[in-house]
Amino acid sequence: MDTILNAWIVTIGNEIINGVITDTNRESISRELRTVGISVTGMSSVGDDIPLMVKEIDLAMRRAKIVVVSGGLGPTEDDKTSEAAAKLLGVGLKLDASQLERIKARFAQWGRSMSDSNMKQAFFPEGTEPIPNDYGTAPGFLIDRDGTIALFFPGVPRELIRMLREQGIPRIFGKFGKSKQIFASRTIIVYGLSESRLGEVLQDVAIDQPGFHLAFLPRFPIIRLRLDASGNVAETVEEILSKKLEIITDRIGENIISVHGKSLEQVTLDLLIERNMTLALAESITGGMIGDYITRVPGSSRVFKGAVVTYSNDMKSSLLNVSQETLQYHGAVSPECAREMAIGARLVGRSDIGLSVTGIAGPDGGTTQKPVGTFYVGLATPSDVLIRGFFLPGQRDWVKTLAATQSLDMLRRWLSGIRLHGAAA
Amino acid sequence: MDTILNAWIVTIGNEIINGVITDTNRESISRELRTVGISVTGMSSVGDDIPLMVKEIDLAMRRAKIVVVSGGLGPTEDDKTSEAAAKLLGVGLKLDASQLERIKARFAQWGRSMSDSNMKQAFFPEGTEPIPNDYGTAPGFLIDRDGTIALFFPGVPRELIRMLREQGIPRIFGKFGKSKQIFASRTIIVYGLSESRLGEVLQDVAIDQPGFHLAFLPRFPIIRLRLDASGNVAETVEEILSKKLEIITDRIGENIISVHGKSLEQVTLDLLIERNMTLALAESITGGMIGDYITRVPGSSRVFKGAVVTYSNDMKSSLLNVSQETLQYHGAVSPECAREMAIGARLVGRSDIGLSVTGIAGPDGGTTQKPVGTFYVGLATPSDVLIRGFFLPGQRDWVKTLAATQSLDMLRRWLSGIRLHGAAA
Repeated sequence: MDTILNAWIVTIGNEIINGVITDTNRESISRELRTVGISVTGMSSVGDDIPLMVKEIDLAMRRAKIVVVSGGLGPTEDDKTSEAAAKLLGVGLKLDASQLERIKARFAQWGRSMSDSNMKQAFFPEGTEPIPNDYGTAPGFLIDRDGTIALFFPGVPRELIRMLREQGIPRIFGKFGKSKQIFASRTIIVYGLSESRLGEVLQDVAIDQPGFHLAFLPRFPIIRLRLDASGNVAETVEEILSKKLEIITDRIGENIISVHGKSLEQVTLDLLIERNMTLALAESITGGMIGDYITRVPGSSRVFKGAVVTYSNDMKSSLLNVSQETLQYHGAVSPECAREMAIGARLVGRSDIGLSVTGIAGPDGGTTQKPVGTFYVGLATPSDVLIRGFFLPGQRDWVKTLAATQSLDMLRRWLSGIRLHGAAA
Repeated sequence: MDTILNAWIVTIGNEIINGVITDTNRESISRELRTVGISVTGMSSVGDDIPLMVKEIDLAMRRAKIVVVSGGLGPTEDDKTSEAAAKLLGVGLKLDASQLERIKARFAQWGRSMSDSNMKQAFFPEGTEPIPNDYGTAPGFLIDRDGTIALFFPGVPRELIRMLREQGIPRIFGKFGKSKQIFASRTIIVYGLSESRLGEVLQDVAIDQPGFHLAFLPRFPIIRLRLDASGNVAETVEEILSKKLEIITDRIGENIISVHGKSLEQVTLDLLIERNMTLALAESITGGMIGDYITRVPGSSRVFKGAVVTYSNDMKSSLLNVSQETLQYHGAVSPECAREMAIGARLVGRSDIGLSVTGIAGPDGGTTQKPVGTFYVGLATPSDVLIRGFFLPGQRDWVKTLAATQSLDMLRRWLSGIRLHGAAA
């Protein structure tokens, strides 16, 4: 390969061009390609309309050596991508027996029989190469025309990206040779700093330089920092990344959850397992969200005993032994209540640690003293009970998500032996 | 105006094509245009590269009567859209004194003086019409070429959409006359049918006809059906939608959660409020997810008492009074355990209804008799206890999500007086 490989991305679907969904496939495909040294020239989208699709794919194949198309390979009437590709090539559609077997096998594995409409997914434009789908029913395919290739994938994000990575990129390299550009990246998970604050603190790191790019990818309330480095020598690329990582860690170390993309819940679970400690929760404002987060991690049952979600005062006192005095004089949203809930969770779960959170998610229920967005986190450990107060206003689902994340982060900080956030209460 | 007005959307920026940000401007522009009867043919994006921009805008103007371009009008080095537009027209850039005054006035209003770099924003391609920006510093402009117009706006979402609405659309109608197209839509929320099954059942409804389009928008494990109708007469458009809705309801009525986009948790909460019944949960496999779903709905505290998340057998017996015999002879994942958990939830929550779910989310813990994906839902009502068994295998987060959704749907069906899903156990 002599020069940089360029790609054009085409996504298909009326729901995209009508603005019914946010099409995130374009950006995922672009990031995946950049990781292996392929640079994206442009991207476009058209609806489920055969003449428009034919024209768009044709144009894309004239503007880049590599075209990645996603969407329109499903079993329904409005999935027309294979038909459009056949028309572009001036050929018919042909059944591929081995792909049909794969689709049937997938249904069998799910304990179901294949419905007739899925039959359609085993038809490919004549002369193209089917790309098997190990994660769903829709296979993709590859067109090779005048030294340019177009790869077609389904629009389901998790199928698309894995197929591109495992099946698509090897085929691209098979055709054009491996990119000589070496790309490397790190994903740093950050919590507890706003995007604009992060931008200020890392202003000098964020300035583009040849072979380095820093991107801020907020996924509320977490911000992922994506460090991308490229060059011709692997050592140089790794060195750039290490240096940048060191600077970032120096400046915002406490807010870094992980430097390899590990989630907050995974990091917290790992710390619990490492320290051989069990956990029980008392959730109010979060309604079960913290338990949901924790149990996303496989093997969480090793340290997670359970949770009590006390949305009513009744349950706070009957299950967690929160006193009538506390509920009456301080209210359910108070440092005192968070303290008794954390202690109660630890007792009821017979666990080493009890973590509690109580607050006001809104839109109703706020007062002047305790407006929507007020919440208290309690952490009962074998030696102590720590309480912190927070005021992070916003819409209901934001407040819930912040309260859940903040609670988990308080536990992570305590387990890591670093300074706790929030107002001591 | 004789025919349907078509538009093409072009967004500009390296951060878009490199996948660093999610470009939501495309979909916002599309929705805004559809609201006034302008249909979008396609959308594309290129980076901050003048030759690529010139080509893309030129192509777009050949494919649609209306082109909306956003991005690249800022004050920095990499903002090159005006230059590209000038190149496309073969003209130079020219200072517009009145726009310069507006920009200066805006800075004055903010109590700041204009920096030199903003000067650039008062230069426009010769012969184009500036579009004032009442919300920021970057004005837009309009190109009129061979009966086609291209409107340029900044990429800042709130400036872009307001400028399009207040300045852009009147200019489009000024040129082409007001659109006579009327658009209407419905979003039906469906649960319990696969996309391919739905596609079969609604095959004839899904066939495109003039003025009607049905889209399947899966958001696991829910499928949204989006019905779009258009025409020249409001009554006709509404009639098409009503007829289609009637057919769909006839065929899959029980699987329809709502016909106006209301979520499963909202519908279930509404039914509880309507029937004046309170709810408590006993969650195992779902880890708190059902409680999280329910408490997303504002006002859920009116009927939701709380949940007990019993991830350990300890907590199942101490909090929910699940018997040692059940845990020993039938196991924590059994119809018997689901029954006792549901009864326990009802008692502990002092609620009218107790809903429970226990199962195996994986990846470990499955057996031949009870493989990963097995779960039991229990529903204790004032009169009865109903148990249903399910086997819905998949990866851990899918199984959890399915178990949570299935449990809520069982409650919804019971409250609605319709047939329950799953195997009676």
